[in-house]
Amino acid sequence: MPFFNRITILGPGLLGASLAMAIKKKKLSEKTRIWARKPKSLQKCLEQEWCDETFDNLEDAVIDSDLVIICTPVDHIERVLNEIMPKCSENTIITDVGSVKESICKAASEAMIESGGTFIGSHPMAGSEKSGMDYASAELFENRTCLVTPDPEKSTDDIEKLENFWKCLGMRVLRQTPEEHDWIVSNISHLPHLIASSLSSHLSSNPKKWSEMAGQGLKDTTRVAQGDPALWCEIMKSNHRNLSKSLELWIESVNRIRDILREGNWEGLTEYLADAAEYRKGIR
Amino acid sequence: MPFFNRITILGPGLLGASLAMAIKKKKLSEKTRIWARKPKSLQKCLEQEWCDETFDNLEDAVIDSDLVIICTPVDHIERVLNEIMPKCSENTIITDVGSVKESICKAASEAMIESGGTFIGSHPMAGSEKSGMDYASAELFENRTCLVTPDPEKSTDDIEKLENFWKCLGMRVLRQTPEEHDWIVSNISHLPHLIASSLSSHLSSNPKKWSEMAGQGLKDTTRVAQGDPALWCEIMKSNHRNLSKSLELWIESVNRIRDILREGNWEGLTEYLADAAEYRKGIR
Repeated sequence: MPFFNRITILGPGLLGASLAMAIKKKKLSEKTRIWARKPKSLQKCLEQEWCDETFDNLEDAVIDSDLVIICTPVDHIERVLNEIMPKCSENTIITDVGSVKESICKAASEAMIESGGTFIGSHPMAGSEKSGMDYASAELFENRTCLVTPDPEKSTDDIEKLENFWKCLGMRVLRQTPEEHDWIVSNISHLPHLIASSLSSHLSSNPKKWSEMAGQGLKDTTRVAQGDPALWCEIMKSNHRNLSKSLELWIESVNRIRDILREGNWEGLTEYLADAAEYRKGIR
Repeated sequence: MPFFNRITILGPGLLGASLAMAIKKKKLSEKTRIWARKPKSLQKCLEQEWCDETFDNLEDAVIDSDLVIICTPVDHIERVLNEIMPKCSENTIITDVGSVKESICKAASEAMIESGGTFIGSHPMAGSEKSGMDYASAELFENRTCLVTPDPEKSTDDIEKLENFWKCLGMRVLRQTPEEHDWIVSNISHLPHLIASSLSSHLSSNPKKWSEMAGQGLKDTTRVAQGDPALWCEIMKSNHRNLSKSLELWIESVNRIRDILREGNWEGLTEYLADAAEYRKGIR
């Protein structure tokens, strides 16, 4: 028996379309309903077996759904929330897939006063340097982590129902406050992206033939820098206070290794590299 | 018909053992001869079908070989070179797999005066964060790049023969001077390692639970930081002048993005990320 009667996905990009695929594959909903801004995207969705209904109107798309997942770019989530919350019925769970949570959860708390629905923030840490429906995959979420940021005053039934939904997609679920979430991801996701970009940017001023010599190490270290610049600018902008702080703390670590190299302190270098290696090996 | 009658591999670590496997698989030599320092390693080699003869004496291992490949850690290569060069016959090609080339090629030039053999530096950019014979694979070299740093005054026949050897293992071969090589790899290999380590080091001071939340982006960005610390310390030490210079130039790029974030210059951020993304997409 499926988990939900109707799941609405707002925005069939890489994450939204992958969700719809996974929902259909795992039979988690009777119906999957898709809203998109562009008529062309809606047309494309209608041709897919993972889409049961399409909507060009946000409000119609959420009425009578028991789970609504906002998959728009992060800077549109608050606007979409304000538009749909008054139309959601009492037993609707609303969530999102945004990479930042504090401002979104705050906006949702305010919007919830006027609404029967319950918002619980989610951040499925799945994705790719590719974007768009064409790269979607039902397996995108398998063995990945999903951070969930519920308001502790809300119904635990709803929280558990949402957490089980992510688990059914193969995800490991961890609970955080929105503030904790944003600080953690500024360090473990937004900063790594910025670092990968800084290395790519540094190399881009060098002779073109260098990139022909790239080994797997360079490719891996810079892979995420291929991500959509506009999308990542919005993510970094939404979390820029935390990100600036993470950046300063990381620069301290860079300065440490710079000094070690300058001093020719080879024992210190081995120790620095060994500590870094040990930490990295602890990441599953 | 095999390329060589006898190939000697000095040091059956990850690269050395992978080479021996690939040579056997592609039938590039009548005999593969292995020298190792530890009797235990020699014993283990003798049990492998990719090893025909073992030696505990460096000089005996190279006599009458037509290709000798030094696969010891980078800080031992010059010593090994000085020891074996006088024993090599006129038609022996000697190469290595070291990640730095200037000092090694200089030492080889001097040693060559006393020897009939021809040294040509190689740097097959294949490897792994794992080290040791147990992780060896005949496929390690497929689709990877090998940088070759010949003395331009030496026989082109020998250079071509060595380049063809690497090509037979599935590698793309590019020719560089030793000086160019060391500057390029300080930027595209040693600096990325140092950056990955600086990020791991930064994160290691944070709560342990953070590492449970790591997404694929963080894993990729820091993967190389798992490499053997002693081995990487030697590589960075051997190339520390270039590496310090690369580090300073990259820090300029870090400072640029730090200023952009501080100023809230979101247009500038998108542009920075877009330039980085474009460069990264150009790396095959």
